[in-house]
Amino acid sequence: MSTISQKPVVFDPINFITHPDRYVHWQMEIDGPVAWLRMNVQEDRPLRPGYQLKLNSYDLGVDIELDDAVTRLRFEHPEVSVVCIESALDKVFCAGANIFMLGQSTHPHKVNFCKFTNETRNNIEEATAKSHQKYVASLNGATAGGGYELALACDEIHLVDDRASSVSLPEVPLLGVLPGTGGLTRLIDKRHVRRDRADLFCTVAEGAKAKKALEWGLVDFVHTTSQYKEAMRARLTGLAGAGNSAHGVELDDISPVREEATIRYQHVVLELFEADREAVITIQGPEAADAVIPEESAHLGASWYALRMWRELRHILLELRFNYPTIGLVTFRTEGDVEAVIALDEALAAQADHWFVREVLLQQGRTLKMIDVTARTFFSTIIPGSCFAGSLLEIALAGDRVYMLDDSGEENVIALSSLNNGAFPMAHGLSRMENRFYGHDDALAAVRARTGGRLDASAAQELGLVTEVLDDIDWDDEVRMAREERRSLSPDALTGMEANLRFVGPETMESRIFARLSAWQNWIFTRPNATGERGALTSYGKPDSPEFDWSRI
Amino acid sequence: MSTISQKPVVFDPINFITHPDRYVHWQMEIDGPVAWLRMNVQEDRPLRPGYQLKLNSYDLGVDIELDDAVTRLRFEHPEVSVVCIESALDKVFCAGANIFMLGQSTHPHKVNFCKFTNETRNNIEEATAKSHQKYVASLNGATAGGGYELALACDEIHLVDDRASSVSLPEVPLLGVLPGTGGLTRLIDKRHVRRDRADLFCTVAEGAKAKKALEWGLVDFVHTTSQYKEAMRARLTGLAGAGNSAHGVELDDISPVREEATIRYQHVVLELFEADREAVITIQGPEAADAVIPEESAHLGASWYALRMWRELRHILLELRFNYPTIGLVTFRTEGDVEAVIALDEALAAQADHWFVREVLLQQGRTLKMIDVTARTFFSTIIPGSCFAGSLLEIALAGDRVYMLDDSGEENVIALSSLNNGAFPMAHGLSRMENRFYGHDDALAAVRARTGGRLDASAAQELGLVTEVLDDIDWDDEVRMAREERRSLSPDALTGMEANLRFVGPETMESRIFARLSAWQNWIFTRPNATGERGALTSYGKPDSPEFDWSRI
Repeated sequence: MSTISQKPVVFDPINFITHPDRYVHWQMEIDGPVAWLRMNVQEDRPLRPGYQLKLNSYDLGVDIELDDAVTRLRFEHPEVSVVCIESALDKVFCAGANIFMLGQSTHPHKVNFCKFTNETRNNIEEATAKSHQKYVASLNGATAGGGYELALACDEIHLVDDRASSVSLPEVPLLGVLPGTGGLTRLIDKRHVRRDRADLFCTVAEGAKAKKALEWGLVDFVHTTSQYKEAMRARLTGLAGAGNSAHGVELDDISPVREEATIRYQHVVLELFEADREAVITIQGPEAADAVIPEESAHLGASWYALRMWRELRHILLELRFNYPTIGLVTFRTEGDVEAVIALDEALAAQADHWFVREVLLQQGRTLKMIDVTARTFFSTIIPGSCFAGSLLEIALAGDRVYMLDDSGEENVIALSSLNNGAFPMAHGLSRMENRFYGHDDALAAVRARTGGRLDASAAQELGLVTEVLDDIDWDDEVRMAREERRSLSPDALTGMEANLRFVGPETMESRIFARLSAWQNWIFTRPNATGERGALTSYGKPDSPEFDWSRI
Repeated sequence: MSTISQKPVVFDPINFITHPDRYVHWQMEIDGPVAWLRMNVQEDRPLRPGYQLKLNSYDLGVDIELDDAVTRLRFEHPEVSVVCIESALDKVFCAGANIFMLGQSTHPHKVNFCKFTNETRNNIEEATAKSHQKYVASLNGATAGGGYELALACDEIHLVDDRASSVSLPEVPLLGVLPGTGGLTRLIDKRHVRRDRADLFCTVAEGAKAKKALEWGLVDFVHTTSQYKEAMRARLTGLAGAGNSAHGVELDDISPVREEATIRYQHVVLELFEADREAVITIQGPEAADAVIPEESAHLGASWYALRMWRELRHILLELRFNYPTIGLVTFRTEGDVEAVIALDEALAAQADHWFVREVLLQQGRTLKMIDVTARTFFSTIIPGSCFAGSLLEIALAGDRVYMLDDSGEENVIALSSLNNGAFPMAHGLSRMENRFYGHDDALAAVRARTGGRLDASAAQELGLVTEVLDDIDWDDEVRMAREERRSLSPDALTGMEANLRFVGPETMESRIFARLSAWQNWIFTRPNATGERGALTSYGKPDSPEFDWSRI
């Protein structure tokens, strides 16, 4: 476990940029409306030394490729309507997250690894729900732990009935941890497996073979070995339909430039102040020309601001999570033209039915959701020259506090666009406006009535859109003090507090996985019964059995 | 932190039975329809030695009395319609949970202490919502942490405006833990405090005084010092209305008899097998005569089976949680007449509008909810002679698995009563039947259609009401093996798994507090930043500042 020390935990920097040409562990094959993502994990190519990725077990490196593939299919292959996730191995689908990798990882890495894999599974479900790309899991053999959780994220699950292959969630009996990549929640919330059967299933390491798996609803279809290939082909063809002729948009590498304490992207700059445990993210707003969307919007390509900036912001969030663990406070700034943001947002809203605009908006929404569940404090500072409007204001609203300068000399405004009214639902289903004004319907209506107009500091304050308005005499001192105070607080208490205060009211399966399930898993990961010297996760594969403190808590 | 060892953590046995005549820390005063619960914590009377309960700070002993008072008001004083929680101290309402008590408590005690205090707060809110006893918090002075969380559980909050008194949640800045007794959740879900204001409020140790507290919705009313007494009196009188003339039912002591490894109550027996980390709870069913409810049902008194048995069961759950921490598996058994249970349930359902029957049903429901959130595995075994019907079947359904014997010789049946159809909602709002058959409306309808009928093992299995049916050849071995297997698993993994699988689908404020908030708090409690040698909770009141591992997780 982590020791008390001022020294930050040191990670190898992780690279999140990849491309199908460089995939190590996955093969992507496309035949008209059907795509195959074939898992073929190279056991001698782990992300970090110290473990082997046997039996299609995975680490973060494997999942970075999977997430890239899922995202690329949405942008680059709109003609695809069915995606089959399968295995290149014989009689093995996937053994789940690599246990030795988990055993040797720090607590922060384990937690962030789980968060990333959960986001990948959500990306898969969103593709099925919103992008007309239906995911099908083809389980040709043993499917354990995170392997079965990957299948659970698919819209339907096929399992070979060869009297040997099974699906299983052996985390509790073998490792003393939870199926934490949504497994427990998807079993009951999504697949409606009866809770006592789920209890049995999750405590029996060997899992369930075809007959029981079908009867209990753990899978949707089973096929005998001899019929398997043909049955899968027929099913995929049937689901795919006629296909369509849309042409995709290739996602270019975003290739940031790393300077000493700065990572510079095309539209975003990340400045790191590691001694202060702070970072500043400065986002350049769009140009007026970005709002001109041709009828065939895909011609705008991946360099279009509306896509490129958000991919850059997503990359920054991943950098912060994995490569800069001690940065506790992040301040968002924007620079640009409020009108240009609103114009672009309204153009996007007007053409949201086009597949490419839809995907751009979904990418923006996924990035915003990442802010909601990133365990760092986010402040935004609004000063003259900034452009916190519409989708960029949504970034501020995703964070914890918004400070706005009431400058006596210069104009300083924010504005709402149509996109603030539900285009970017949070994980629990509410828009960030509904979340902010929960229980205050009048205030919400008053805010919505101002969509499109420029709001100065006093209007923003009166409407409840900013946390504090400060005049130019107080601004520097007050914002500095707020930052210093925040930085001094316990990072764990802040993580727990933010995870609770950011989501008000209802929950969905997605938010239950991030909240209920992941919070319990984080607790278990810190417990000696899992990760102590004789804990179950640490002891896995070693000659000695784990030893437990039997207190029930 | 707990160490890996076979030796169970040793607790002083805690006594949960009290009576207003023996209260140490609270004064109960009743004047017609208005009751006052006056907090007057005796600083030299902590539950355990080692800390002083200054400034109305509390430990479990204080909360056991409060919970007893809230319950007694519901049963013994139905004439009361308004309950005012106030302080006997000058300029101090309550300083919250005692920090030194928390600092010296084991992790299991901290977690169970929070669970109990959360249940007490829910008892208060249920009294307001269901028993027409509206709770009013009268904050005559400093109100911090758990003190403000107690106020948040009340239906309205009054604060004195004396330019000094404040409400505050200083847990994050002072202690490095969360306001974990519902504080974070009630701020936003119940009081609709805007999330960024909640963020500010929870990070500023000094909290908010009257003006801001009112403006932000942290309190409902403020009164100046000179007007305070009169304003409170007028408000309480106004809320109380004319009152009513119902006569209450005195709750007798349940006084169990402790033998060597057995605790024997009137209707329930708890057998402890500590070497095996198991317990068996055997519940005697009602007599036929218990179903005869006179028009003035209160004449049945507290010795009536329908009340007494459930109070006994609640007491057993508290004994297990606090005094037997290493008992991991609890098996429910029942003995009695299925028809008598159904007859009693239907009589209760028929007279549910009467205040006393309503309170009896609510007591049953609270006890069932305690099973849902108790961190032990619950199995039920159904054999000939048992009476798992209606409300007693609900106990089995609250647990994790149900085993039923298909005996070739003897009749073995279960049955449903009207009470299974929503009389006992779980914390997340679903009935246990809706929870069990979530997403399977047809199965739920099929089950409901069988209300009242006797269901043998094969019918019970077909309807999905039991986990496994075993014949008399397999019964002993299979049940024994299931128990042995369960006992061998990591207690932490089981706690996390059960907390996830027991609640499917929707969430409410109440379930969010038990799930999202408490799970995060449990994590934080295990972290060195809170409870390590230099953690914030450990360091409180000591000369050295806490030292943090700054990794954000």
